Amino acid sequence: MKNGKKQTRLSGVERTDQIYSVAAQMICERGFDATSMSDIADAVGITKAGVYHFIPSKKELLFAIMSYGMDTLEAVVIKPAREIADAEERLRAIITSHSMLIARSSNDEGHSPVTILVEEELGLSPAHRRKLRQRKRVYVDLIRSTLEEMKAEGKLKDVDVTAAAFSLLGMILWVARWFRPDGKLSREQVAEEICKIAFGGLLQIQANGKRKNTEQTE
Amino acid sequence: MKNGKKQTRLSGVERTDQIYSVAAQMICERGFDATSMSDIADAVGITKAGVYHFIPSKKELLFAIMSYGMDTLEAVVIKPAREIADAEERLRAIITSHSMLIARSSNDEGHSPVTILVEEELGLSPAHRRKLRQRKRVYVDLIRSTLEEMKAEGKLKDVDVTAAAFSLLGMILWVARWFRPDGKLSREQVAEEICKIAFGGLLQIQANGKRKNTEQTE
Repeated sequence: MKNGKKQTRLSGVERTDQIYSVAAQMICERGFDATSMSDIADAVGITKAGVYHFIPSKKELLFAIMSYGMDTLEAVVIKPAREIADAEERLRAIITSHSMLIARSSNDEGHSPVTILVEEELGLSPAHRRKLRQRKRVYVDLIRSTLEEMKAEGKLKDVDVTAAAFSLLGMILWVARWFRPDGKLSREQVAEEICKIAFGGLLQIQANGKRKNTEQTE
Repeated sequence: MKNGKKQTRLSGVERTDQIYSVAAQMICERGFDATSMSDIADAVGITKAGVYHFIPSKKELLFAIMSYGMDTLEAVVIKPAREIADAEERLRAIITSHSMLIARSSNDEGHSPVTILVEEELGLSPAHRRKLRQRKRVYVDLIRSTLEEMKAEGKLKDVDVTAAAFSLLGMILWVARWFRPDGKLSREQVAEEICKIAFGGLLQIQANGKRKNTEQTE
């Protein structure tokens, strides 16, 4: 968030950013319930009262972190995608930018505000959970409507659009669990592989175009 | 686990099974840290001391639940798959049986011992975490080696085998988050859609067989 600004004294916004990012890291490593406000204060290097000055409660903190993750998703994935007129290109952009975002956010334990979004929903108050679910739904709807558009254009195989949308999300979000920055594949390669698999599938030879007989003999 | 046995008095094994299954449900609904042994005892209808008679500690309980989920995965997915000689059919069986298992285990909140396996790793002791990671690795290796076999047979597209293995897992495991027993798709249909997407991909027209130019103009 801060690019090249002087670091001598943090502004309120910068301090809040810093607290979120440290807290996100700790929550990912230990789990939400096992992370106390004192732990966070210690890690940031301020008093517990200081943390409470910026963040009113732990539940608020979790909501703030997840909202921050969602803001990032909107800025990096959703907003740019909406500007792409062609549905197939839009879907490709969504898969690529979201995979890259997840991979970019992955440390060795594979977590960040963008991944906490998925993992710690239980720690939220019901009202906060509803708000975030609504924001997530907007994203799922974007993917689904993009697939519907491709279907209308005759570009989509005979697949259920809901199953396809969530399968895409599963592939993308799972990157957080297996991608390693020091691994064999770069972030760009991971995104490209997921595009290839999602668009073209795994099988070299399309058995009969639409569907293979899944019945085993006997 | 119990099929048709008399239910008047539960045996130790049956009681342990019952505690696991109730606890799994509660952990999924509230999170591991927010579920106490007293809550579990209340829900099972025995005393807290009674629960401790069967399960020595909460961490042990979590490990037991996850091990039980892993046992189920091995019995329902891994073992039958190993008996299939043809790699493509083996992969199809893995995707189908694992998706169905996840969908079958999904209640409205979408959780069970099979899904807790994925979600609550942080609550485990390091030794238990290692054990479970090892068992999970065996499964990932089965998927990976199946893909390698298909590659050697010329049946696999030009995709990275690791990315493909984890993309498959992402699609399958994500079913726990979106499948609803009262939804439009049956368990069988979900498994079939995932097979179709994984094997054939989404795009109706294969642009040029191997890779599409992902560069945007300018």
